[in-house]
Amino acid sequence: MADINSKLEIGVTTGPIRGSRKIHVGPLKVAMREIDLEPSSGEPPVRVYDTSGPYTDPAASIDIRAGLPQVRRAWQLARGDVEEYAAREVRPEDNGQLGPDRSGGVPAFPNVAKTVLRAKPGANLSQMHYARRGIVTPEMEYVATRENIGREFIRRERDGNSWGAEIPEYVTPEFVRDEVARGRAIIPSNVNHPEAEPMAIGRNFLVKINANIGNSAVASDVASEVDKMVWSIRWGADTVMDLSTGRNIHDTREWIIRNSPVPIGTVPIYQALEKVGGIAEDLSWEIFRDTLIEQAEQGVDYFTIHAGVRLPYVPLAAKRVTGIVSRGGSIMAKWCLAHHKESFLYEKFDEITEIMKAYDIAYSLGDGLRPGSIADANDEAQFAELYTLGELTKRAWAQDVQVMIEGPGHVPMHKIKENMDKQLESCGEAPFYTLGPLVTDIAPGYDHITSGIGAAMIGWFGTAMLCYVTPKEHLGLPDRDDVKVGVVTYKLAAHAADLAKGHPAAKVRDDALSRARFEFRWRDQFNLSLDPDTAEQYHDQTLPAEGAKTAHFCSMCGPKFCSMKISQEVREFARLQNQSSDGFVAADEAEKGMEEMSKVYDETGRELYMGQGDREHD
Amino acid sequence: MADINSKLEIGVTTGPIRGSRKIHVGPLKVAMREIDLEPSSGEPPVRVYDTSGPYTDPAASIDIRAGLPQVRRAWQLARGDVEEYAAREVRPEDNGQLGPDRSGGVPAFPNVAKTVLRAKPGANLSQMHYARRGIVTPEMEYVATRENIGREFIRRERDGNSWGAEIPEYVTPEFVRDEVARGRAIIPSNVNHPEAEPMAIGRNFLVKINANIGNSAVASDVASEVDKMVWSIRWGADTVMDLSTGRNIHDTREWIIRNSPVPIGTVPIYQALEKVGGIAEDLSWEIFRDTLIEQAEQGVDYFTIHAGVRLPYVPLAAKRVTGIVSRGGSIMAKWCLAHHKESFLYEKFDEITEIMKAYDIAYSLGDGLRPGSIADANDEAQFAELYTLGELTKRAWAQDVQVMIEGPGHVPMHKIKENMDKQLESCGEAPFYTLGPLVTDIAPGYDHITSGIGAAMIGWFGTAMLCYVTPKEHLGLPDRDDVKVGVVTYKLAAHAADLAKGHPAAKVRDDALSRARFEFRWRDQFNLSLDPDTAEQYHDQTLPAEGAKTAHFCSMCGPKFCSMKISQEVREFARLQNQSSDGFVAADEAEKGMEEMSKVYDETGRELYMGQGDREHD
Repeated sequence: MADINSKLEIGVTTGPIRGSRKIHVGPLKVAMREIDLEPSSGEPPVRVYDTSGPYTDPAASIDIRAGLPQVRRAWQLARGDVEEYAAREVRPEDNGQLGPDRSGGVPAFPNVAKTVLRAKPGANLSQMHYARRGIVTPEMEYVATRENIGREFIRRERDGNSWGAEIPEYVTPEFVRDEVARGRAIIPSNVNHPEAEPMAIGRNFLVKINANIGNSAVASDVASEVDKMVWSIRWGADTVMDLSTGRNIHDTREWIIRNSPVPIGTVPIYQALEKVGGIAEDLSWEIFRDTLIEQAEQGVDYFTIHAGVRLPYVPLAAKRVTGIVSRGGSIMAKWCLAHHKESFLYEKFDEITEIMKAYDIAYSLGDGLRPGSIADANDEAQFAELYTLGELTKRAWAQDVQVMIEGPGHVPMHKIKENMDKQLESCGEAPFYTLGPLVTDIAPGYDHITSGIGAAMIGWFGTAMLCYVTPKEHLGLPDRDDVKVGVVTYKLAAHAADLAKGHPAAKVRDDALSRARFEFRWRDQFNLSLDPDTAEQYHDQTLPAEGAKTAHFCSMCGPKFCSMKISQEVREFARLQNQSSDGFVAADEAEKGMEEMSKVYDETGRELYMGQGDREHD
Repeated sequence: MADINSKLEIGVTTGPIRGSRKIHVGPLKVAMREIDLEPSSGEPPVRVYDTSGPYTDPAASIDIRAGLPQVRRAWQLARGDVEEYAAREVRPEDNGQLGPDRSGGVPAFPNVAKTVLRAKPGANLSQMHYARRGIVTPEMEYVATRENIGREFIRRERDGNSWGAEIPEYVTPEFVRDEVARGRAIIPSNVNHPEAEPMAIGRNFLVKINANIGNSAVASDVASEVDKMVWSIRWGADTVMDLSTGRNIHDTREWIIRNSPVPIGTVPIYQALEKVGGIAEDLSWEIFRDTLIEQAEQGVDYFTIHAGVRLPYVPLAAKRVTGIVSRGGSIMAKWCLAHHKESFLYEKFDEITEIMKAYDIAYSLGDGLRPGSIADANDEAQFAELYTLGELTKRAWAQDVQVMIEGPGHVPMHKIKENMDKQLESCGEAPFYTLGPLVTDIAPGYDHITSGIGAAMIGWFGTAMLCYVTPKEHLGLPDRDDVKVGVVTYKLAAHAADLAKGHPAAKVRDDALSRARFEFRWRDQFNLSLDPDTAEQYHDQTLPAEGAKTAHFCSMCGPKFCSMKISQEVREFARLQNQSSDGFVAADEAEKGMEEMSKVYDETGRELYMGQGDREHD
């Protein structure tokens, strides 16, 4: 709770996630969490992927005014391809015409760097560029350790349908390099965001999720946006997009980036539009370019660029039920209409790429024509743009710049796979990054769920990162609770996708939790879940007594029937039998076993219990 | 709020669902709802399927002590195949050893019938029996009208992948009859539950959902269970299962059935177990049979019978991570183990069927060996039982008794379809009725979502009814809020399945809502949604002013940018062009059109707005 000055107090949530211990693995000190289980279980701790940064590390001291430690700075400087230069001066239009004293706005971040980094002339800082030259960077090593979690210690299982993804048994730094070189994965890592812990987005890695935050002209402020960023990574957001509009946009972003251990994405056209007073037709390449430099110097790790909204596609949206629903897409459509000209984003694409490679910013090629309703799914406008994004992917790759592709929106279940297949084919397997999709339009207030269904499915089919949707979608701006519900929903969807793809380490956590459930280790069950606080709270609503957390029963059936003893009996019974090798027991063998078991049963007493599990049900 | 007596006050929620008007269609007065749209839309009202019964009809007077009107009684008597007889006396063990004064329990329902109905000797009241003799019953006619909703008035579209389901363009009473005769659909309709409004469960009809309620030894009471029943049908539960255990089990059920306009299901073994003091090995066929008669006379519409938990399958659960998680399944497994005998449910199956046909109770063949964890999905125990359920289906059908099959539990996405395919094949296309499935184990507190994902998918693949899961699953007993969240989640999953199957009327509501969204008709958007109250409440949290509900902007982008005008411009532009027949516009044509459009644009003023839709996003 840092009291920054009279105008701004930013509080963020710190402290360990319930039941988890922060650990740092290997020479690069890769951050993870371990969940210790009850000694009675005889099981080792469960390692989990961790996005929460130093905020959940009791050993770290957090100072929002100073920002996070620069974990990547030494690696960047060691490569010898960067130059330091004086950063662009902040201008009044960067913050919506606020003067230098920020009167009426928020204060500037107190610790802004006077100088920033970029590539030396002729150099290219992109991880893809290093990868293509055969170099394994520390970022790639970090990613390899991080993706393995504890894969070397656990029993790895391959059970899934990967739809063509090639997930390795074990992730080596060389594998990461090859995936990045191939364009199948990206490591968003702006040289001016050295605070970020490296992570990869790609079909052969764990499925990632993004959380959107950002103030608008109507609601929210910088303090609550920084808090939301820290809050969203606590629950598992792998990247955060700052979609702020309105005033204070520059300063808000600075506060967020300096305190973010995850990559930050933006949609630069939002700020460019603010600079021209909200008049889309007054946008120009020069203003846009200036905004890219401004944000590049601040450290934005990926830019959503709607360069696929080409002039000839705009009329294709005419037949739609919901037209153009992407803000960036409609800004560009408006510009194209007003000037009856091809989009400057498309025309200047190679110049944008030059900027991207000077800082190692990844493209997130925006889907300005994504469908905003079931009626508009998979239509000509959407796919026309997708094919253009494929063309642009190759142009970016020609300069060794990292690319991911934005997709879906509202798509019924039977049309989801076509999106993935077309994307893989037309974009050369560049990582797909989709919003949901929402599988029906009729549940506003529950669109984290309508979209969570589509997200799990498209994640299974091969989408590398899922952009979350909160319960407030279509209705209002998400608050802190909405952000958490959105993140946890997407985390479970991403995990379900990993399971279905057959990720070799994904099932470890499910199995540990299921064993805890079966053995009535309530605390282990809470701690292993995505949201231990809510799990415990729900349990306590029915059975608040502290003793109930160690009791061998639960609130659904009560103490009389609820236990796992029946299955222990079944196990003992099975031991007595000569089980056939395939585990299937013929009826006559079973009968013989049952007779023996009956003796055991009489000897050990008649106290038997029922299995535990879905006890709301039959 | 009926003050029944000093011991019991039961309050239920009545009054119209926000924005909906109750209507009664055709000679059978089939209950539906209509949602009127703003006159400015120029659109007709949208008809929606309605499960809420008289409680949402302002013209109905509700008296919980009297029960609902007996809509089906005249039809039943007109068939001439029923006889009236004196009902079995209620015994102390029916209510957990409470005496006739119910001291310490809840009062008896004041309006219990002294006589009940059953088939005359040699007769068979099953809808399947009528159907196979070519008879179209009023129940079938009711279902046909109900399933069509307003299908005759709307533009029907076929866009989906039905995975082999044969959903007709229009549902005729004869189609309903043929589906019931074939065993592909059931109409649960105990002759002693004449209050129920007929509904069908089958792959070629709308996907249905079930809500579980019921008190336990630990929590809840009869008043709150009746309230939960009414509350769950208000939000869309098509059937309700009363899973009560503990005391008052008979009386609780009577209150629920007499006041339920939807079919009620139970698991009779729960009550049988109570009658033997909770000692599974003391269960007997005689006690079970007596319980079936008791519940048949009360009017239970379908019985979950775990007759597939056969002696030889019990050891198959030995290798499992979570053993047997079905309560009914573990009771029977315990009985089999204790007696080393084949299950009496399996042995006496044909005698049970005799009871079913005398009252027209449908089988819900229980999946006692369903997997309780991802680790146990699709294992030998599960499928061994499924094949037995297929065998039992044919035995029930031989006596013209209606059957559905219970399935899933915890199943990762890539193993869901195998469940559906095996069920269709082994159970002769009898309706599948599945719990979820949950697609991961790691999100207790969010299992309505982990299971909603699986439910939407298996519904798409062909499951006829989805058994809901609430946020409290695995943790505690659901309260009223949990019931609502569970029902709405499953309603959206079922609807997503209908959309993906290509149900000809499903998309009407999505399209109406999307048009309302695009045109900023906020009230229409709320009213068309599954939960209008929550939608409006979320909207008001960000923009509480009453004027904001008619404003042409929303809280995500604020008044400056947010409108649908850009797409209106795009439409006008498209009109000016000679659009090619396939809707695709060549680049040179587009340029010509753009020039003309530019003139229009200059003439109509430079005020353009952005599209509206997913405005949390880019």
